[in-house]
Amino acid sequence: MQVYDIVKEKAQSAHDASRLLATTNASVKNRALLAMAQALLDQADIVLQANAKDMEHAQAIGMKNSMQDRLRLTRERISSMAEGLRLVAALKDPIGEVIGGQTLSNGLSMTKVRVPFGVVGIIYEARPNVTADAIGLCIKSGNAVVLKGGSEALHSNAAIVKILSAAATEAGIAEGCIQFIDVADREAVIDLIRMNGLVDVVIPRGSHRLIQAVVQQATVPVIETGAGVCHTFVDESADFPMARKIALNAKVQRPSVCNAMETLLVHENIAQAFIPLMMDDFEAAGVTVFGCTKAQQIDQRIKPATDEDWATEYGDLRLSLKVVSSLQEAMDHIAQYGTKHSECIVTESMQNAHFFQAGVDAAVVYVNASTRFTDGFEFGFGAEIGISTQKLHARGPMALPELTSYKYLITGNGQIRG
Amino acid sequence: MQVYDIVKEKAQSAHDASRLLATTNASVKNRALLAMAQALLDQADIVLQANAKDMEHAQAIGMKNSMQDRLRLTRERISSMAEGLRLVAALKDPIGEVIGGQTLSNGLSMTKVRVPFGVVGIIYEARPNVTADAIGLCIKSGNAVVLKGGSEALHSNAAIVKILSAAATEAGIAEGCIQFIDVADREAVIDLIRMNGLVDVVIPRGSHRLIQAVVQQATVPVIETGAGVCHTFVDESADFPMARKIALNAKVQRPSVCNAMETLLVHENIAQAFIPLMMDDFEAAGVTVFGCTKAQQIDQRIKPATDEDWATEYGDLRLSLKVVSSLQEAMDHIAQYGTKHSECIVTESMQNAHFFQAGVDAAVVYVNASTRFTDGFEFGFGAEIGISTQKLHARGPMALPELTSYKYLITGNGQIRG
Repeated sequence: MQVYDIVKEKAQSAHDASRLLATTNASVKNRALLAMAQALLDQADIVLQANAKDMEHAQAIGMKNSMQDRLRLTRERISSMAEGLRLVAALKDPIGEVIGGQTLSNGLSMTKVRVPFGVVGIIYEARPNVTADAIGLCIKSGNAVVLKGGSEALHSNAAIVKILSAAATEAGIAEGCIQFIDVADREAVIDLIRMNGLVDVVIPRGSHRLIQAVVQQATVPVIETGAGVCHTFVDESADFPMARKIALNAKVQRPSVCNAMETLLVHENIAQAFIPLMMDDFEAAGVTVFGCTKAQQIDQRIKPATDEDWATEYGDLRLSLKVVSSLQEAMDHIAQYGTKHSECIVTESMQNAHFFQAGVDAAVVYVNASTRFTDGFEFGFGAEIGISTQKLHARGPMALPELTSYKYLITGNGQIRG
Repeated sequence: MQVYDIVKEKAQSAHDASRLLATTNASVKNRALLAMAQALLDQADIVLQANAKDMEHAQAIGMKNSMQDRLRLTRERISSMAEGLRLVAALKDPIGEVIGGQTLSNGLSMTKVRVPFGVVGIIYEARPNVTADAIGLCIKSGNAVVLKGGSEALHSNAAIVKILSAAATEAGIAEGCIQFIDVADREAVIDLIRMNGLVDVVIPRGSHRLIQAVVQQATVPVIETGAGVCHTFVDESADFPMARKIALNAKVQRPSVCNAMETLLVHENIAQAFIPLMMDDFEAAGVTVFGCTKAQQIDQRIKPATDEDWATEYGDLRLSLKVVSSLQEAMDHIAQYGTKHSECIVTESMQNAHFFQAGVDAAVVYVNASTRFTDGFEFGFGAEIGISTQKLHARGPMALPELTSYKYLITGNGQIRG
């Protein structure tokens, strides 16, 4: 069978099954999620064997150690995947929630209710735990799911899908709701993201390159996730100890993630006093700092930054640092180089805090707190399928409600339009 | 200048201006809308002269009469465009509305507020009134707008934009918020819908062909609008007079619009009794009916339908009619041929009404009312930029809130992530 036909058949099966899943009761879905968690624990050996094959291949091709670490499954990691499914089961079911409504002047009763999208396509890389997470969130939100993981995790993903699918079906979820594209061909991604009419939305998770490829080539609506060139601006009125604590945390607590800080902006009126103290913290934490000319003049530990640095998501212990002459210059820099993810001002000025929050265009705009809090769990959503960096549909951390659409139910007694 | 450069320059201007518009107070925006309405009335002659040029060209190329009618402006039509702007001024400002929030367990205060998208691209055809409507709704919702109208209305659109832009700027709206692409080249559309980073969302309005071309080629997020193959299902328990009234209204009250009915489904248990009565109504209204074999056997006025008929949005006084053996068959037919726009069941059965509303996947699902009500004004929204037929972001009639995104404002006192 051609790749296109394989993908279409799976999308069609998901589409057909999604009609049944859309009206499946919360109790059935929750029972299925708990059964899936248990099945994963019971059959952990099968998953570990499959993962061993992927790891063997990874070593054979000389995959980077950091990538290998993401790919590796252990009994503990499988337990935490199972625990994730249990936590999702415990969350409030978003489907059927009434989110608006009124009686129209002609007596028509109108109710706006949450419904599933239908079919969600997930394109992702490396980490096999995304497989279980995505399946759990999609089933709970009443969506059938078509998964296309990276070829490097093919055996692990296939094993997880097989176990979860069987448990779901056994627990009463319509067969076909969980589809896995086991074709390594990249053509399969293109086919999936152009399957209009069968796939309702596509969420890419992974590298910038992967996400941009999906955005550029998809005809199905996409939710863009993940790119984060996040800034912290230390205003002239900032409390120094607070600013140092926040900036250090934003950079070093977990530098590989999208809500970590990539650029520190410092008001010139405090630059001379603040930067050397801050650099002591960064030096102690092993951070390499690339700065503008002014910053370099203040502290010799700062290396020269190029224009490219301001636009770079390092994802590691590198940082760019710029001295700005005003709040407005800081905001202009963020507007030019930011990715509309998470931005922070550290200030004691009410006026500047308000101006910054109103004027900065990003999913999350912080005053006096680390950008690292942009996360579905930290936000109290109880789950996260990704962090949207687009403005259509959902922005910032996406959980169950962000995996839904809505419809209007209108009931009358013969009303016609005049 | 190359077409691409022209489009990019306009998108960049809109993007830059949108930063200012995003924080412009409601009072300034409303004053601008009223000034725009007045300017349109004051300078109606200029608009009429420009429109005369477009009409002359339309006649010269032998444009269809129905198209010419859409293109034609009169003093009355200009008045109603002005009135539309005044009505939008009177609506509640969506920007800054708090739509969620909480205090997180670590004391962070989180507020979710409505913000504009930034820059909205509108691709449309024929009707010059869309120009004024779209500008009014975008400015009110804090969005800069880039308009690309059809070449057949170039002079009319350009005149309207010039008048409204001048009035807006005079009233305090940032220069550059209203951009009009006056290049007739179709390449300009492609450039606009691939202007990621400068354009935040694109809304195509017009023919199925135009909308599909945008969906297929855009890389900027799109809101798909307008295609409507709407059904009315007359259940076996239906009240006949009510069913006839609803079906007639859904078909004939304004057959050219997307919420008009294209297919009537009739339960076989009442087909023999109901269809001849219904056909009397349709005959009197000049409706041509294409039906399945069973329907044709019941009433000789029904012509044979082909498979293509079930998928056709006639947009005129033609209708397809199918006899179905059950509620499930009706719903399966709708799932196969519907465009997820507006669907109706006429029934006296509570159970069937509930089953239909829960199981039919469409923006609006009616019980005992005409599908013609799917409209922003009828829904009490006070405005409409289009009717979304996709599930991402907005579904059904879109008004001011549907032209917004949101952001999270988080304020702390030094919180960092542990």
